[in-house]
Amino acid sequence: MNSAVLTAGGKLAGRILDVLAEATADAPGVTRVAYGPGERFAHNLVREEAQKLGAVARVDVAGNLYLTLAGSNPDLPAFVIGSHLDSVAHGGNFDGAAGVMAGLAVMAELVAQGIRLGRDLIVLATRAEEAVWFPLSYPGSQAALGLLEPGALEAKRSDSGRTLADHMREEGFDPDAARRGVPGIDASRIAAFIEVHIEQGPRLVAAGAPVGIVTGIAGGFRYVEAKCLGAYAHSGAEPRFARHDAVLGFADLVAALEIEWDALEREGHEATITFGRVQSDPTQHGGSRVLGELGFTLDVRSAEAAVLERIEARLRTILGEIGSKRGVTFELGPRFTWEPAKMSPALIAGLDRAATELRMRAPHVPSGAGHDAATFAAAGIPTAMLFVRNENGSHNPHEAMEIADLDQAIRLLLRFVTDSDSSLDQP
Amino acid sequence: MNSAVLTAGGKLAGRILDVLAEATADAPGVTRVAYGPGERFAHNLVREEAQKLGAVARVDVAGNLYLTLAGSNPDLPAFVIGSHLDSVAHGGNFDGAAGVMAGLAVMAELVAQGIRLGRDLIVLATRAEEAVWFPLSYPGSQAALGLLEPGALEAKRSDSGRTLADHMREEGFDPDAARRGVPGIDASRIAAFIEVHIEQGPRLVAAGAPVGIVTGIAGGFRYVEAKCLGAYAHSGAEPRFARHDAVLGFADLVAALEIEWDALEREGHEATITFGRVQSDPTQHGGSRVLGELGFTLDVRSAEAAVLERIEARLRTILGEIGSKRGVTFELGPRFTWEPAKMSPALIAGLDRAATELRMRAPHVPSGAGHDAATFAAAGIPTAMLFVRNENGSHNPHEAMEIADLDQAIRLLLRFVTDSDSSLDQP
Repeated sequence: MNSAVLTAGGKLAGRILDVLAEATADAPGVTRVAYGPGERFAHNLVREEAQKLGAVARVDVAGNLYLTLAGSNPDLPAFVIGSHLDSVAHGGNFDGAAGVMAGLAVMAELVAQGIRLGRDLIVLATRAEEAVWFPLSYPGSQAALGLLEPGALEAKRSDSGRTLADHMREEGFDPDAARRGVPGIDASRIAAFIEVHIEQGPRLVAAGAPVGIVTGIAGGFRYVEAKCLGAYAHSGAEPRFARHDAVLGFADLVAALEIEWDALEREGHEATITFGRVQSDPTQHGGSRVLGELGFTLDVRSAEAAVLERIEARLRTILGEIGSKRGVTFELGPRFTWEPAKMSPALIAGLDRAATELRMRAPHVPSGAGHDAATFAAAGIPTAMLFVRNENGSHNPHEAMEIADLDQAIRLLLRFVTDSDSSLDQP
Repeated sequence: MNSAVLTAGGKLAGRILDVLAEATADAPGVTRVAYGPGERFAHNLVREEAQKLGAVARVDVAGNLYLTLAGSNPDLPAFVIGSHLDSVAHGGNFDGAAGVMAGLAVMAELVAQGIRLGRDLIVLATRAEEAVWFPLSYPGSQAALGLLEPGALEAKRSDSGRTLADHMREEGFDPDAARRGVPGIDASRIAAFIEVHIEQGPRLVAAGAPVGIVTGIAGGFRYVEAKCLGAYAHSGAEPRFARHDAVLGFADLVAALEIEWDALEREGHEATITFGRVQSDPTQHGGSRVLGELGFTLDVRSAEAAVLERIEARLRTILGEIGSKRGVTFELGPRFTWEPAKMSPALIAGLDRAATELRMRAPHVPSGAGHDAATFAAAGIPTAMLFVRNENGSHNPHEAMEIADLDQAIRLLLRFVTDSDSSLDQP
């Protein structure tokens, strides 16, 4: 598919994404720190583009941006299409931003085609979704719904060491109001929250489909400051019997959790178990050391809460066994958790119908990664997600979404909102 | 044992070690960089102390220091007692220095007791033994024997990035002469090289013996820049089938080499296999990543050359197997090797006799770590080592040698040189 057959909305989305990539380039890739200059630039950019389309812009106490194209009936709850505009360091341009642009593109198509919905269409650009900046689950969308835990405002940004409250204030927002739970939008005023996002895995590539309809978002738990503790020693001088080798303890943990993962898969469960950082202490390690400490992160995900509980229980048993065998101990440190989120069956059915009408293949896919949509689903708001085919994963500069594939999501979403504008249940 | 029963030489050694610890303190521990200010201070200090005893000081082209107490017969080859005066960063005070002080103490005892040996007694303080500074095997003692490979002079010091030649020249020595192989001492003029060193493992502590007689020095090979390479991905989004997880590849390697280690031990061989650094890329790792790269060091040691060859061969097989199974590759990077060194059976027998005469328990122990003594042994010089009991290993600020134990090594060495002054074979 070449750009000649893109919708006008798709072309607009591609153009804005190009501007954004150039302005937030940080080779390799882009960097848009949460509450930093890249995110600020992105918010200003989409605000200007939406205003050109006739949308009204509004910012909440936490800096989330609401771009509203008014419907004809102000009593009806709105469609909200949104995602985030921050990125990881040296990340890709599409993770988050593509979803906001998809919303703008739908808005542009409605305007271009002279379609006035009954409901407001709100394009929502959230803040601070990437947990690499603040060790929190979606503080931006939490604040949008007035659900931000007050303690979250004291979380420190990984690059600056300063608090979320500080960074909000510095960008001109109102952390005190966020602490009081002042929402940006009332949950009861949202008929459907829909997030378009690049797929971060290879399922759509493997299926040969441009777009997928997400069935649910995995929950999980993560230990970001875990350690295996043994005893430092000289590699040549310390005989095997006297060693407390943190590397052997860690390797045992990796192997034992993989055995559990095998067992879960044999029983038909889905999960992921990942060590995303493994790091000896640079002031202590060396070619001739037995390592006395090895730090690591452990990230476990599943859409099934019972599977998460089972892995956590097994983990505790494993750590005890390895401790006895190896003469090491484990300190897992703080535990960070997030709940699985179910997508709305009614919205999935509506998206299925729209795809059928468009003769578009849009297979059902799970989301292993967390998304702002999880916040809306957890708040009881009917929520759906579309994934767009994307090579090479995300959180890296090599992510490779085709604008033609994003355009398919835009078409699907446009059809869905026009079809369901009058049919969605009233709250 | 309290200090009241120390020899005068032992007291002297303790006093000089205290001065040295204070002057080169770098909390925690001491730092004496090779060809840096701490090593320079140490060389000046022992030179002054030896001169007070009537020794003649001489420095070779590489900065090794020879402190000669003249014997009565200038035709006889000398006793050389030596070790190094550099340390690792934040290391202990005794690693290396205790051996030089033991030599000075023997010299002091001979002078105090009015014993004049037939042979010269040379206390040798070498340079740059700690491989953490230059990725070389004992360049100081190599240069002392005129054996330094010319290429070694281009090796870069880890902290400064500047070459060994630069650092030698900066300290007033002559790297060009070292390159030409100008020796500091003729191998044929050495009757015996003896190195006293703290034990860096727990065998003497376990045996309850203050001193051990070393049977041999393990050789080994080391990969300091090895990597397991997979593919970075999002931990939640990348399904298991699509992963190329560097952590799983690395953990497989650890497990497979341990199986080989088990097999070797069952067959009666000694070896050590150690991963002294394990490190994901801080610019790439994170809680939600599948790691695409994991760097590590691999250090393998054995006193048996055939065991080293067997482990290397097995390693290559293992890496291929893991690569196929995990979809990862390994890059081992540069290989750094050092040969096993056998201690002189005649000298070991002489030390055994001296211990028996003194009613001192001095068990035979292996050296897993490398030492300057390996250079002398490899050059065909009769070589021996004494280990001194030491808690908590070395290369760390917690090493804990008692001066009373060092004093036992001094007594043993003194008895050995007086006993064997006239009995050692002529070259």
